[in-house]
Amino acid sequence: MNRPQSVGHTALDPVTMSEDQLRLIDSYWRAANYLSVGQIYLLDNPLLAEPLEAEHVKPRLLGHWGTTPGLNLIYAHLNRVIRDRDADVIYVTGPGHGGPGLVANAYLEGTYSEVYPGIGQDAEGLRKLFRQFSFPGGIPSHVAAQTPGSIHEGGELGYSLVHAFGAAFDNPNLVVACVIGDGEAETGPLAASWHSNKFLNPAIDGAVLPILHLNGYKIANPTVLERIPSPELEALLRGYGYRPITVSGDEPKIVHQQLAAAFDDAFDAISAIQKAARNGGVADRPVWPMIVLRTPKGWTGPKVVDGKPVEGTWRAHQVPLAETRDNPEHRAQLESWLHSYRPAELFDEHGALRPELRALPPTGARRMSANPHANGGQLLRELDLPDFADYAVPVDQPAATMHEATRVLGAFLRDVIVRNPDRFRLMGPDETASNRLGAVFESTDKVWLSRTTPDDENLAPDGRVMEVLSEHLCQGWLEGYLLTGRHGLFNCYEAFVHIVDSMFNQHAKWLSTSRELSWRQPIASLNYLLSSHVWRQDHNGASHQDPGFIDLVANKRPEIVRVYLPPDANSLLSVTDHCLRSRNYVNVIVAGKQPALSYLPMDDAILHCTRGLGIWQWASTATAEPDVVMACAGDIPTLETLAAADILRRELPELRVRLVNVVDLMRLLPDSEHPHGLTDHEFDALFTTDKPVIFAYHGYPWLIHRLTYRRDVHHYIHVRGFKERGTTTTPFDMVMLNDLDRFHLVMDVIDRVDGLAERAAMLRQRMVDSRLAARRYTREHGEDDPAISDWTWSST
Amino acid sequence: MNRPQSVGHTALDPVTMSEDQLRLIDSYWRAANYLSVGQIYLLDNPLLAEPLEAEHVKPRLLGHWGTTPGLNLIYAHLNRVIRDRDADVIYVTGPGHGGPGLVANAYLEGTYSEVYPGIGQDAEGLRKLFRQFSFPGGIPSHVAAQTPGSIHEGGELGYSLVHAFGAAFDNPNLVVACVIGDGEAETGPLAASWHSNKFLNPAIDGAVLPILHLNGYKIANPTVLERIPSPELEALLRGYGYRPITVSGDEPKIVHQQLAAAFDDAFDAISAIQKAARNGGVADRPVWPMIVLRTPKGWTGPKVVDGKPVEGTWRAHQVPLAETRDNPEHRAQLESWLHSYRPAELFDEHGALRPELRALPPTGARRMSANPHANGGQLLRELDLPDFADYAVPVDQPAATMHEATRVLGAFLRDVIVRNPDRFRLMGPDETASNRLGAVFESTDKVWLSRTTPDDENLAPDGRVMEVLSEHLCQGWLEGYLLTGRHGLFNCYEAFVHIVDSMFNQHAKWLSTSRELSWRQPIASLNYLLSSHVWRQDHNGASHQDPGFIDLVANKRPEIVRVYLPPDANSLLSVTDHCLRSRNYVNVIVAGKQPALSYLPMDDAILHCTRGLGIWQWASTATAEPDVVMACAGDIPTLETLAAADILRRELPELRVRLVNVVDLMRLLPDSEHPHGLTDHEFDALFTTDKPVIFAYHGYPWLIHRLTYRRDVHHYIHVRGFKERGTTTTPFDMVMLNDLDRFHLVMDVIDRVDGLAERAAMLRQRMVDSRLAARRYTREHGEDDPAISDWTWSST
Repeated sequence: MNRPQSVGHTALDPVTMSEDQLRLIDSYWRAANYLSVGQIYLLDNPLLAEPLEAEHVKPRLLGHWGTTPGLNLIYAHLNRVIRDRDADVIYVTGPGHGGPGLVANAYLEGTYSEVYPGIGQDAEGLRKLFRQFSFPGGIPSHVAAQTPGSIHEGGELGYSLVHAFGAAFDNPNLVVACVIGDGEAETGPLAASWHSNKFLNPAIDGAVLPILHLNGYKIANPTVLERIPSPELEALLRGYGYRPITVSGDEPKIVHQQLAAAFDDAFDAISAIQKAARNGGVADRPVWPMIVLRTPKGWTGPKVVDGKPVEGTWRAHQVPLAETRDNPEHRAQLESWLHSYRPAELFDEHGALRPELRALPPTGARRMSANPHANGGQLLRELDLPDFADYAVPVDQPAATMHEATRVLGAFLRDVIVRNPDRFRLMGPDETASNRLGAVFESTDKVWLSRTTPDDENLAPDGRVMEVLSEHLCQGWLEGYLLTGRHGLFNCYEAFVHIVDSMFNQHAKWLSTSRELSWRQPIASLNYLLSSHVWRQDHNGASHQDPGFIDLVANKRPEIVRVYLPPDANSLLSVTDHCLRSRNYVNVIVAGKQPALSYLPMDDAILHCTRGLGIWQWASTATAEPDVVMACAGDIPTLETLAAADILRRELPELRVRLVNVVDLMRLLPDSEHPHGLTDHEFDALFTTDKPVIFAYHGYPWLIHRLTYRRDVHHYIHVRGFKERGTTTTPFDMVMLNDLDRFHLVMDVIDRVDGLAERAAMLRQRMVDSRLAARRYTREHGEDDPAISDWTWSST
Repeated sequence: MNRPQSVGHTALDPVTMSEDQLRLIDSYWRAANYLSVGQIYLLDNPLLAEPLEAEHVKPRLLGHWGTTPGLNLIYAHLNRVIRDRDADVIYVTGPGHGGPGLVANAYLEGTYSEVYPGIGQDAEGLRKLFRQFSFPGGIPSHVAAQTPGSIHEGGELGYSLVHAFGAAFDNPNLVVACVIGDGEAETGPLAASWHSNKFLNPAIDGAVLPILHLNGYKIANPTVLERIPSPELEALLRGYGYRPITVSGDEPKIVHQQLAAAFDDAFDAISAIQKAARNGGVADRPVWPMIVLRTPKGWTGPKVVDGKPVEGTWRAHQVPLAETRDNPEHRAQLESWLHSYRPAELFDEHGALRPELRALPPTGARRMSANPHANGGQLLRELDLPDFADYAVPVDQPAATMHEATRVLGAFLRDVIVRNPDRFRLMGPDETASNRLGAVFESTDKVWLSRTTPDDENLAPDGRVMEVLSEHLCQGWLEGYLLTGRHGLFNCYEAFVHIVDSMFNQHAKWLSTSRELSWRQPIASLNYLLSSHVWRQDHNGASHQDPGFIDLVANKRPEIVRVYLPPDANSLLSVTDHCLRSRNYVNVIVAGKQPALSYLPMDDAILHCTRGLGIWQWASTATAEPDVVMACAGDIPTLETLAAADILRRELPELRVRLVNVVDLMRLLPDSEHPHGLTDHEFDALFTTDKPVIFAYHGYPWLIHRLTYRRDVHHYIHVRGFKERGTTTTPFDMVMLNDLDRFHLVMDVIDRVDGLAERAAMLRQRMVDSRLAARRYTREHGEDDPAISDWTWSST
């Protein structure tokens, strides 16, 4: 067994708890451990009322014991602190695969039976509780949306601490206890998350208490942080800006006393920091306390199995005894393991927790399993939104004047922030100004608790904008903030949102599950504003050009995901307002930041965005039945499509062109597949059933085929989009590289419409020549031909 | 201006360099800075032979000045160290947007003109060098594949240090100098990368010298690491296991001397560590040196522009003077900025670098811009591969015996490792044993330089397997290792490979670009083995169920990406052997680890994998023209398809079923779209043009539609796959949740084949009943009905 290293920095107070308190807390811990082992192993005989037989044991053993006793230990001690101080605490479980522990504690607190009335506080309830765990039709093996008191899954490791900070922002009375496994601590997102303390304001935010649980092992290996010398670990944590309080041991009585003292120390320190900040205002960034807990992996479990050490090794990670159904020796070991918790001391003969233990945890909303912050929808207050129409840009005629869409949005967001000083945050990886949302800084700042210099601008401890050069932190903070009942927007360079693909996946899965749980109240949607997009990466080139996040999003359950491509400033305002009001979705908005033409006066924009797509009659030459549909989604494709339509109406005026603009991408799906989907009737009325459709799309072309696959016209749809050709070049050269330019779209129309006049063939050749000329121009001058870049609807 | 903090820990030796050395190194630095500014600003007049006019200046100013002078300073000093010690050094540029600096240095060393002969060492060459930068048809603004000497883009920040370590592994004489920007240092991957020193063996690996360049700002904000107190930063870096050597200042002469001393100190320490480890073998993990360099952002650039401070602030990030074409004052400032480097002292009247400066950098392969490690294909040595057929499992009859595919592969990989002890590594985030590749530990260990305990297994400083709980590190180490001319395989849980989506994107982009550069030699492919896949996450549930990485991969350029879904153990062997021999691709192999049926004897497997797909005649009832094609891709879909075909051959023997298995997914694309694509003729011969195709696919169904979109039969293809329904449950319950089960596939066939006997309708109803019964069974027993899970081809 790998005994925890003994270290010198323990805040040791061996008499923090009386003998009786010690006995009780240890009993409570045993109860949680007993229920945890029961969940992993037992189908029946939950109180061991009879000898353990093979049929009492699950045929498939699916769960993770290793981390669980540590989670239970921390839980029991937090309960004591909450009771002592009437503290408001939630519990974030980094090692989320220790699901049985959190379920056990929710059950011991009574919450589980309140939320799931089928599972009562008696022997039958215990039987069901055990049986359902990791069982078909039951609950997952991990802490999950199904687990009362959780805002965090922990299946994909790395996000516990960032979620914890997100939960603490603007929750001044909340303490977020965050258990970080030493495996998780090796991940990049977790390693970066420690620095979140530079963005936590003790005057207006709550506290995060990180508890680094070093049990020494991951699935199959020791962990880095447990095996580096203690002084190195201490330096690291102090370097991150914390004061570590270490508790270490494998003797329960001693560890109980140490841990109680450590929690008292930590909570005292938190109170002192907050009091100082709230009385005198913020001065310096405080050094927050944290706990390092070194206990054996799989503590209190089997010490040796089949001659090999298990407790305190990686072998305790999942199920220490793997053959309890078929191997009588394993089963006997399981039985004595279960008996080692002395269940009869913990539960009465009916299976009810004994009163002295029942009296131990906090009650009501103070129970961590019932804390409303962990069911954030309960606390959700509507945003106070200004009328977005007040921020509209004037559009007297379409495609004639230029605006920077995100800059216009910035003014709206500024006032959203002003009106909601306690429940809305704007996240961005050092890109809020770059994405031209700078108007927000007229009324707020970026959160910054570190040193400032006279030249700094817009930094303050109470800023409402959060910037750090980590998409992981932006995403994770926002997730934690939303899950605890608040609102926000994450603005990000389009290409780099891929950095958080996997975090998005996990959040979408969480939303999918929580929608199916009636007791989980809806939370605000996760809103992305992707700007600095693929078509305008003039400064940065290929590494910054990737519109594929939309494809990832489209793979998730349709009831969760929405994708919007507003073509101009006013439509961006309308779409954003809609997204900020929505619940339980992931909304992806893609919008450019560069000066671009405006098409829609505000009223039209509202109508257009409400419909999600529609014919732009002013840009169409067809009154009824068109010869060709030119469809577009995204600001740059819309521009190129309009410019192409402009050429066609001048050069081939007899060609009946219908121009359809798509804002809400999910409208393209059938109504049977997405709540926003159009009926076939509606769809056909726009796109026809048999006319060529030239579709200019912002991203990878295939998504449009996928979305329109079931439509009659599908076979006639020809999509242009990004085909992975990019570099540092001019805007028009970029669209040409990908055949999305106006000239190519005209060629596409000519190639696909039958029976055109001979003039069309000549026009086609002129388009080829125009492309060559444009290419030559940019290569000579280093910028686009103004005849192209200055195009407006009525200029030619 | 934010002056660098003065600190106390500087390794200060004010007379490291003589006055003459100092003058020369400063001149060289000025030359690099001059060339950098020239690239950002100048179209013409490269030597300022005449007064600077508007037409000499680029119309669009696209580049990043802020980080560049720091990069140039480090480069010049590394040159000195290389010369002094004949050191073998490559330069990894974390702040890759400082592209002009690295291009400037490659030009000064002559490498640029060797690689791009059009750009000579004269005034015309300078003009072209300047003009091409960030110019249409020219080079990107970032360090990129086009930049000689680079293995790293740096456009997406976070991966410099992990690439550097990857480059150093098994390169005992190489020193990888890695510049880390303080913006990049905020990212998660970078934060985790510091711990790579626990996996670097001084006896057999080279050294990494991190240079944390604190210039204080990102795009728009100060940086965390520059603004925390120096003792905190020092604790952090010591906690990461380094000895920081700090250099700080804004007075060039002093900084030059300090930095020279710091480099001498660092290189001395590296030599001492390596000597100790190589003479006496490894003892403890060494504390490696690193450098902290604090200099002003945009150093030597304009101090004030339009009344606002620029040098030493975030305003220096991109172009300090933005209106040099139209604003004469800005242009005058640019001119005097350029003159401040005294170009006439640096270049002769023909534009050639003056001899005393030309003599300064190292020569030949010692030039960092020409170091072959940074063009890894030059050093690539073939893998010595055992005959994979020697590891075959016997398959006397198809679908009768079970094997764990990855376990079989493990034995092959074990011997690949044995035969290639200096050029092959296996990466995995703590999952190599979990993914059942454990045979590798018969002959090697996991790299581990930290403390060990007696219970540890398979840990050693010279292990060839690299495990850490960070997909970012696994991916980044492997990228660095491949880019410097070695080979490897990354085994990963399928769902969590999404964590490195963005790293994959960037690597694929790098490969796309480097394939177009004749001087970049092909490197070994990036090989993924995705196991513990979506269909068999019995322990872990929804968070671990996501097959979407394949979709991401399919969005990249077809010449780069390959996806393989071997159906069994022997085909996995064949596919893996093929991938390990390939060059310049990203290969994704998806394979299960659970016991599963084998279908193909080795010879058949080789043939099948070589073809990439094919009819399994033994499982088909059609001899010529089929009534229906049952296609499958992936081990679980293949199992379910075969079980469905088995039902059909027994119950509807007159139905002519053709079974097609697909290993190489890209074969489905037309030959015009992918090098592996089938011609229509070949495709139609397998799938017909008009018969129903029921396609059971491993991942999200849409990808199959996308790949087959242009085929005649497309309209008749019906795809089953993962539709985002998952939890902790039994294997068969998982396929039922997603309608991929054998019973549903039979229903799909019946629903789509016309003119079936009435018996078919009854069979269909039996299938519905079978699904219900199977569901009931799992919910009662907690495991699958053995009649289902024990199915073999001839068992029923």
